[in-house]
Amino acid sequence: MAIIVQKFGGSSVADKDKVFNVANRVVETYKNGYDVIVVVSAQGDTTDDLLEKAAEINPNPSKREMDMLLATGEQISISLLAMAIETLGVPVISLTGWQAGFRTDSNCGSARIEKIDTTRMKEELARRKVIIVAGFQGLDKYDDITTLGRGGSDTSAVAIAAQIGAEKCEIYTDVDGVYTTDPRIVPEAKKLDEITFDEMLELASLGANVLHNRSVEIAKKYNVKLEVKSSFNKVDGTLVKEAIAMEKMLIRGVARDNDVARISVVGLPDQPGIAYKVFSKLAQEGINVDIILQSIGRNDEKDISFTVTKGHLEKALAILEGEKDVLRFKELLHREDICKISIVGSGMVNNPGVAAKMFQALYDAGINIHMISTSEIKVSVLINKDYADKAVQVVHRAFFD
Amino acid sequence: MAIIVQKFGGSSVADKDKVFNVANRVVETYKNGYDVIVVVSAQGDTTDDLLEKAAEINPNPSKREMDMLLATGEQISISLLAMAIETLGVPVISLTGWQAGFRTDSNCGSARIEKIDTTRMKEELARRKVIIVAGFQGLDKYDDITTLGRGGSDTSAVAIAAQIGAEKCEIYTDVDGVYTTDPRIVPEAKKLDEITFDEMLELASLGANVLHNRSVEIAKKYNVKLEVKSSFNKVDGTLVKEAIAMEKMLIRGVARDNDVARISVVGLPDQPGIAYKVFSKLAQEGINVDIILQSIGRNDEKDISFTVTKGHLEKALAILEGEKDVLRFKELLHREDICKISIVGSGMVNNPGVAAKMFQALYDAGINIHMISTSEIKVSVLINKDYADKAVQVVHRAFFD
Repeated sequence: MAIIVQKFGGSSVADKDKVFNVANRVVETYKNGYDVIVVVSAQGDTTDDLLEKAAEINPNPSKREMDMLLATGEQISISLLAMAIETLGVPVISLTGWQAGFRTDSNCGSARIEKIDTTRMKEELARRKVIIVAGFQGLDKYDDITTLGRGGSDTSAVAIAAQIGAEKCEIYTDVDGVYTTDPRIVPEAKKLDEITFDEMLELASLGANVLHNRSVEIAKKYNVKLEVKSSFNKVDGTLVKEAIAMEKMLIRGVARDNDVARISVVGLPDQPGIAYKVFSKLAQEGINVDIILQSIGRNDEKDISFTVTKGHLEKALAILEGEKDVLRFKELLHREDICKISIVGSGMVNNPGVAAKMFQALYDAGINIHMISTSEIKVSVLINKDYADKAVQVVHRAFFD
Repeated sequence: MAIIVQKFGGSSVADKDKVFNVANRVVETYKNGYDVIVVVSAQGDTTDDLLEKAAEINPNPSKREMDMLLATGEQISISLLAMAIETLGVPVISLTGWQAGFRTDSNCGSARIEKIDTTRMKEELARRKVIIVAGFQGLDKYDDITTLGRGGSDTSAVAIAAQIGAEKCEIYTDVDGVYTTDPRIVPEAKKLDEITFDEMLELASLGANVLHNRSVEIAKKYNVKLEVKSSFNKVDGTLVKEAIAMEKMLIRGVARDNDVARISVVGLPDQPGIAYKVFSKLAQEGINVDIILQSIGRNDEKDISFTVTKGHLEKALAILEGEKDVLRFKELLHREDICKISIVGSGMVNNPGVAAKMFQALYDAGINIHMISTSEIKVSVLINKDYADKAVQVVHRAFFD
């Protein structure tokens, strides 16, 4: 029997009515003749409530104990959803992450899945039971509970689909698919019927907030058919797949990311290896650097600017300040009043002029570009955050009107 | 290194301050040179909140899913308590029931412990870690989560102490020991320094609400030194042990139990086997019958009265009504406005006149006795619940003044 994996986020199971909405969807799929494995996150604000309880007691608890605490959120969801499905007269069983066979490394708080032993899930499917799995969690080699970090439930769902050979993995969310840009900013944003894994990866990392990167990476690696759809209506969603036959659109979407801060290291000696020294130190401390811009050296000096997430800003500045004697820069500047606007699309590979079209749209709107970064299927620019909405609107119009 | 097991109930970890109160106690014992294993229940109202969430969704959920849900309560407590102990600079690790090695039968909701694999606990103790174990829970042979039912955390604590050979098992509660009766009813109630397992068993089953029966049974079987003490002060508690050398007091305590209902089966044919028929059917359905009184047959008829817990009343009546054709009784009566008052003490075995002294005290106070039941170390009477407090007072005075 073909297997479908369905993933529902915390907002989709936030209260009794929503739990029953999900239960009905699941039962419908089951009654259409599928084996169904459901992955759920913690209900609505549960995780935040647990974090608050912990913060009250210990502002800096060990990650192991934090994972022990947080894992209860999903355990509550799975049992409640199973109880709801029981009332609909369909055989069902809930499984914690470890009961479902999730084995991870010991990196509590952001553990990586090492394997999924699907024995138990297969047994339950053979009994024609709907399986409800707690997303976001697993067990390490010491039998300690771990969590997978942000977007972990998406990752759990896709990993199950990959491992068990599901026909499809459906990611239910509060929007009904992947849009060409945020419909709250650009009302004429279009829903995409299809998107490639690579485009989705760029969009996800650009703050499109639909699917978590790790889940898309796994889906790409194991070629899992992925669909993003709404848990609140029955409209077709967006299919994420390996390749799309007809490249009708040059670009697939316009994304914005507000979680960006820029650091400028000014007046560095213009010597070989200086960029290496700056970035290796940051990498050692786990700081991801995004857009990098290096000025052309003059007067034996150069400047290096780059972006980090706002959460890493303070740490990055402290690290650089600590290395001042080694790096011998003159000044360390930073600003947070910026945002990143990106266009993504595998169609742009063979179409020169895509970047230029974006720059012109911004220029026509009087928006100044601070930094530029490009890849094969992406162009990103850094602009003042006050112009973020406007920038998304004009760029979207340039490509989709 | 000697091991001490300490058990803290839900009210002892209800909020941040109480969690730290417990953490400090635990750390003090640890610093006195003991290995410490702590068993905790779910915080304050957590279990009730979870039950309410479940009831909203499914008024009659499967016991398996209910246990999946309820087990999260203790998992939250153990991680929070561990986080609190971390701030005090002592190495600590929390373990769920199954991580601590609890294996039970599959009787979800009231599972029995089958064994405790102490490997992990011993490893953690060897690292000189304080261990925080989630009480009330275990894992069955299918790797499903089970709960032990009422008083389960007491049972978990005593079972660990028995299995791991602890020097002592301390049960912390909101009173500072076992009293001769409820101090809220009889202010002159005395705290007992010591009590035997058998006396404690009678008191526990009589509604003294201090220790759960199953925990006392295990303690008796494996001769675990048990101490009941307060989590809010440092007064010595009550030691529960095998035998007490000097039997200074005739009776050990006066207990009341309000959770009693009486059923009378009136006008049964006076034939052999009729009592067997009545009670075997009830036993099959899992209904515990307590005091039984059978009238002397006359006119070829007899009456049988007995007590059940209030929660079992409706079911018991339905069962008997369903068997009316077989039992051929005339009438089925019941009342709930009653309570049970008991005196307990191994001293009474060799002291005739103890029961008579109790009956006289009640007679002098004008309190009518509906039913009487006696064992070697116990006398129980059923009276109208309006006189419950008064009865406890006068009986206590008769023996302890």
